[in-house]
Amino acid sequence: MKVLILMGSDSDLKVMKAAAEVLQDFGVPHRMTIASAHRTPERVSALVAEAEKKGAAAIICGAGMAAHLAGAVAAQTVLPVIGVPIDASPLEGWDALLSTVQMPPGIPVATVAVGKAGAKNAAHLALQIIARSDGAMLKKLKAYRKKMAREVEKKAEELDKGKPGKKKH
Amino acid sequence: MKVLILMGSDSDLKVMKAAAEVLQDFGVPHRMTIASAHRTPERVSALVAEAEKKGAAAIICGAGMAAHLAGAVAAQTVLPVIGVPIDASPLEGWDALLSTVQMPPGIPVATVAVGKAGAKNAAHLALQIIARSDGAMLKKLKAYRKKMAREVEKKAEELDKGKPGKKKH
Amino acid sequence: MKVLILMGSDSDLKVMKAAAEVLQDFGVPHRMTIASAHRTPERVSALVAEAEKKGAAAIICGAGMAAHLAGAVAAQTVLPVIGVPIDASPLEGWDALLSTVQMPPGIPVATVAVGKAGAKNAAHLALQIIARSDGAMLKKLKAYRKKMAREVEKKAEELDKGKPGKKKH
Amino acid sequence: MKVLILMGSDSDLKVMKAAAEVLQDFGVPHRMTIASAHRTPERVSALVAEAEKKGAAAIICGAGMAAHLAGAVAAQTVLPVIGVPIDASPLEGWDALLSTVQMPPGIPVATVAVGKAGAKNAAHLALQIIARSDGAMLKKLKAYRKKMAREVEKKAEELDKGKPGKKKH
Amino acid sequence: MKVLILMGSDSDLKVMKAAAEVLQDFGVPHRMTIASAHRTPERVSALVAEAEKKGAAAIICGAGMAAHLAGAVAAQTVLPVIGVPIDASPLEGWDALLSTVQMPPGIPVATVAVGKAGAKNAAHLALQIIARSDGAMLKKLKAYRKKMAREVEKKAEELDKGKPGKKKH
Amino acid sequence: MKVLILMGSDSDLKVMKAAAEVLQDFGVPHRMTIASAHRTPERVSALVAEAEKKGAAAIICGAGMAAHLAGAVAAQTVLPVIGVPIDASPLEGWDALLSTVQMPPGIPVATVAVGKAGAKNAAHLALQIIARSDGAMLKKLKAYRKKMAREVEKKAEELDKGKPGKKKH
Amino acid sequence: MKVLILMGSDSDLKVMKAAAEVLQDFGVPHRMTIASAHRTPERVSALVAEAEKKGAAAIICGAGMAAHLAGAVAAQTVLPVIGVPIDASPLEGWDALLSTVQMPPGIPVATVAVGKAGAKNAAHLALQIIARSDGAMLKKLKAYRKKMAREVEKKAEELDKGKPGKKKH
Amino acid sequence: MKVLILMGSDSDLKVMKAAAEVLQDFGVPHRMTIASAHRTPERVSALVAEAEKKGAAAIICGAGMAAHLAGAVAAQTVLPVIGVPIDASPLEGWDALLSTVQMPPGIPVATVAVGKAGAKNAAHLALQIIARSDGAMLKKLKAYRKKMAREVEKKAEELDKGKPGKKKH
Repeated sequence: MKVLILMGSDSDLKVMKAAAEVLQDFGVPHRMTIASAHRTPERVSALVAEAEKKGAAAIICGAGMAAHLAGAVAAQTVLPVIGVPIDASPLEGWDALLSTVQMPPGIPVATVAVGKAGAKNAAHLALQIIARSDGAMLKKLKAYRKKMAREVEKKAEELDKGKPGKKKH
Repeated sequence: MKVLILMGSDSDLKVMKAAAEVLQDFGVPHRMTIASAHRTPERVSALVAEAEKKGAAAIICGAGMAAHLAGAVAAQTVLPVIGVPIDASPLEGWDALLSTVQMPPGIPVATVAVGKAGAKNAAHLALQIIARSDGAMLKKLKAYRKKMAREVEKKAEELDKGKPGKKKH
Repeated sequence: MKVLILMGSDSDLKVMKAAAEVLQDFGVPHRMTIASAHRTPERVSALVAEAEKKGAAAIICGAGMAAHLAGAVAAQTVLPVIGVPIDASPLEGWDALLSTVQMPPGIPVATVAVGKAGAKNAAHLALQIIARSDGAMLKKLKAYRKKMAREVEKKAEELDKGKPGKKKH
Repeated sequence: MKVLILMGSDSDLKVMKAAAEVLQDFGVPHRMTIASAHRTPERVSALVAEAEKKGAAAIICGAGMAAHLAGAVAAQTVLPVIGVPIDASPLEGWDALLSTVQMPPGIPVATVAVGKAGAKNAAHLALQIIARSDGAMLKKLKAYRKKMAREVEKKAEELDKGKPGKKKH
Repeated sequence: MKVLILMGSDSDLKVMKAAAEVLQDFGVPHRMTIASAHRTPERVSALVAEAEKKGAAAIICGAGMAAHLAGAVAAQTVLPVIGVPIDASPLEGWDALLSTVQMPPGIPVATVAVGKAGAKNAAHLALQIIARSDGAMLKKLKAYRKKMAREVEKKAEELDKGKPGKKKH
Repeated sequence: MKVLILMGSDSDLKVMKAAAEVLQDFGVPHRMTIASAHRTPERVSALVAEAEKKGAAAIICGAGMAAHLAGAVAAQTVLPVIGVPIDASPLEGWDALLSTVQMPPGIPVATVAVGKAGAKNAAHLALQIIARSDGAMLKKLKAYRKKMAREVEKKAEELDKGKPGKKKH
Repeated sequence: MKVLILMGSDSDLKVMKAAAEVLQDFGVPHRMTIASAHRTPERVSALVAEAEKKGAAAIICGAGMAAHLAGAVAAQTVLPVIGVPIDASPLEGWDALLSTVQMPPGIPVATVAVGKAGAKNAAHLALQIIARSDGAMLKKLKAYRKKMAREVEKKAEELDKGKPGKKKH
Repeated sequence: MKVLILMGSDSDLKVMKAAAEVLQDFGVPHRMTIASAHRTPERVSALVAEAEKKGAAAIICGAGMAAHLAGAVAAQTVLPVIGVPIDASPLEGWDALLSTVQMPPGIPVATVAVGKAGAKNAAHLALQIIARSDGAMLKKLKAYRKKMAREVEKKAEELDKGKPGKKKH
């Protein structure tokens, strides 16, 4: 296991599986499971200890509302902890964003965007940390950037060729 | 000790001592100390256990930024936990408010206003909980309401008697 | 009646019944009814007086928009008042949250999360207050915590056994 | 008394006296006093009854935090009630604004800007209501508009004549 | 015409007709039409002049986004102007609320809640202004309050009699 | 090409095509394409250089989330850059609005409203810039204003003639 | 006069003179004056007409609170209108930002950052519009970009040479 | 150089030097310099290239307003990029927070808290990344956690021994 993905509730799965998919695409062994900072603090501790023991490069934590999961994990380890705020209340993710990013000095949480875009980027951040000592991963990440650029260009070409609103001069 | 007052950092003291002063005015034995959910999770656990053992009626927790203290305490006890969000970052308390109040189902935190007004009300809430089984406290609280009303009336009289802007018809 | 549940409008019922269901699950006699701080102030007063007389442990108030119900009740009693902000306007609950939590010194409202999660926690807070002088309830609350933990573990197991995105190493 | 000015606390006086000064400038008999919706609900009721009896044209209410004063007054009278949200907490008036303006259907509060600008406009709104049946006041209000315009023009002339940054072409 | 109802766009009709319906229920002659502060400033001026001439008691203005309509009308008349912020952009009414309520000193807009609740209250505010010199309207408004109270009580009875979640002790 | 329209992702097309449609209606040659500040910085540079070479009057940039596209373009050219914030995350466009409008001194982005209304206005702003040296365009823009006014009047007439809620006195 | 700078109140001068200073540095004839959309609508109209007649390239409008000035000007001209939101209320500029940027379709306001940074950028935007048909200005703007870059580099050198916190490896 | 610290302006130094101080305390060679995404994009590119060449573990970027620096750097490298939002406008850091954290998929920025607390945590995050392949650093980080805990305990003891508000039972 190179990356541990935790989420506070199974309702977060629809967001957090985007992180797992990125890791899978890059061939990174990982574990994704559910653990709540408030309901199962001991389970959280056991999972963090397991991640440390197995040499994980990072722990990704997704949670909504007063999202304490990433902070609670960060308090227990000096592994990099990446927090994904999830939009899970009428306040639309503002609660999770502030609860995740505004950590006090000494206990950092690397916070990414609210929701699925953030889940993907949490995985990419983990890949970047892995790439520091893994030349093959570094190459894959650079190749991925080129692929993203090509996709943008391809979509631009399709737009040129005839989508509504298109124009050429 | 009937009430335990925790705060995440000594910089919160200027806000939280307002809670202690209310408890002192009502003659309620209490302990006010510092304990951080992220920096001293074990100290938090020990203090919560002590509060339970000594029969505390409530635990008041004040914290700023991604204020996890109240939630972390609430996860460890079924005593009523009262959260005071503290304005301790450029985001002016919005971070602490949302991190304290938006708790997930099953782990409640009784949240009060941001800052000193909230610290006072946290103490009053604790007094109300104590008053359930303490007739003397119930009387004191009712008397306090009358005193508050008289103070408003007194200030209104002073205003009538001659402060700037005053007018009489 | 151990707990009185008030709501400002019958449109709040879909949120507030979550509080009643928790109380019912824990076998706590309660009354849930409608009373508006602005439209039926006298009805509110009568209900509060009834709750006091019957020895209620707490009054739960749910309201949306400029949610004054909890504050109006808190002004009339020294029983613990628990406020549930309800998302009932285009401003998505921010109005109700601030109108409920930002009470002035001396008149506390124990505020919980916006919406259904808050309604559940309002009931749990009431249970915690009851448990202070009710050993059986204390046991039930501790048992409930264990049940919540087991449910998280069970869902984690299901995720391990085969949901999409799952991975094992 | 043509206008009753209420404020929740004497700390609101520095804002609310701006309303009294406008009324005084226009020669409108008024009473400005302190009354708290939460601490002195009966005083509020008595003052509202007095205002109705004396034929007041409007009641102006200034309050901060979870500002219920205007709403509580509006619930007791069908006189026009004007609410001035006051910046009195770390949340900088957002709490008072939403608590004042987001009133439920049937109980309107005419809300003006946060703080001193709002206090002035509350008085102007009261003057406009008075002017409906008072031709002299109508003339005064129209004259005031012209005076305001002249003041803007005068300041523009001063700027033309030599303040720093000025330029002429 | 006793009340003029203006809206910035025909897409605001679904909100603003709630104001017209209240006026109709109370038998108040009114005109509801469309006029844009930015697209038809002259039409706005003409309508305001007509309202003044016909002795209107108030002008109700509903607009979304950077809602200038109420302010533009208020700048042209000393009749009471009532502003209804409309949720008409991704920012969900915050833009319209602030654009309507934060008027500078001397040019008040009586602002009500965002959306349909606000539209209804705008009409009620107009009725209250009319009632100042119309004893019949005063009676109707007081009767309406009683009717609202009865409706709350009726809904409470229905809830008692058997809606889901209901409980009796 | 008189105007270049860039968007960060093809998912922005449903918003940005509103800009292209306005330009088309006014007969302005333009190019609309996709280019990401983060994924294809070189493509952005090439497109900006092309726009400068072809004498474009303005570059319109639409992007969501941490919308850097307009700023990145503005850093590379002294052509007027117009930014359209797009609602593309749970935070509903607040992120894109602030990321677009709060540019540091010396590198301006002319920001318009969030979403489709903004896309239309971005095109109108470009037309206004073109009109400075194009008398025919100036006439068209003035004619368009009259057309908008007539449309408002027409809708007002329709409302007068019989839509629900309408009333005439 | 190539640029007209309007502000709603003389209290806005401390912000808006930053725009005038930029124009002066670039040798652009301009007029800066005070005119209020609400208090002196006719003065605004006269100034706009003058700007059109003198061939102004843009009109810069700075205003605080419910900042209608830029929108009111934009409604009267098809010249490019640039809006500077000013922080002039307890709500810290959020009111002015939304009132300026969220303009409805067809009446654009080119909005820049809140406060002094925005005032500077408003001037730069005007310069960019002028540069379209003024080769000398185009050169000046390109030179300014290089100057800004050199200033950053110079400050970086100073930091390298010995400011506190500096480090070299 | 193990860590590159970039800031958009020398006015950010008072915040960002907190990051440099943490790195210095842990003996990590670093470079702190100024480079603006908008004013000196080429300087940014050169510094990023240098950091990659020298084997930096992370790049820390601090910026205010529409804070694009971290995103612009992240677009050019697959090194982990850590963003520190800086409170540098009337909007109090909300602009910088959203501009930094809401990055689109594929280009992550590890965002920390607004201001000085965030700058410290940015450095700690970099240390955690370094510690992955540096056992000595891992030990130092674990020791630092213990030191933080001891400091909390020491402050708690001081509070017990006699600060105002303290109480012992």
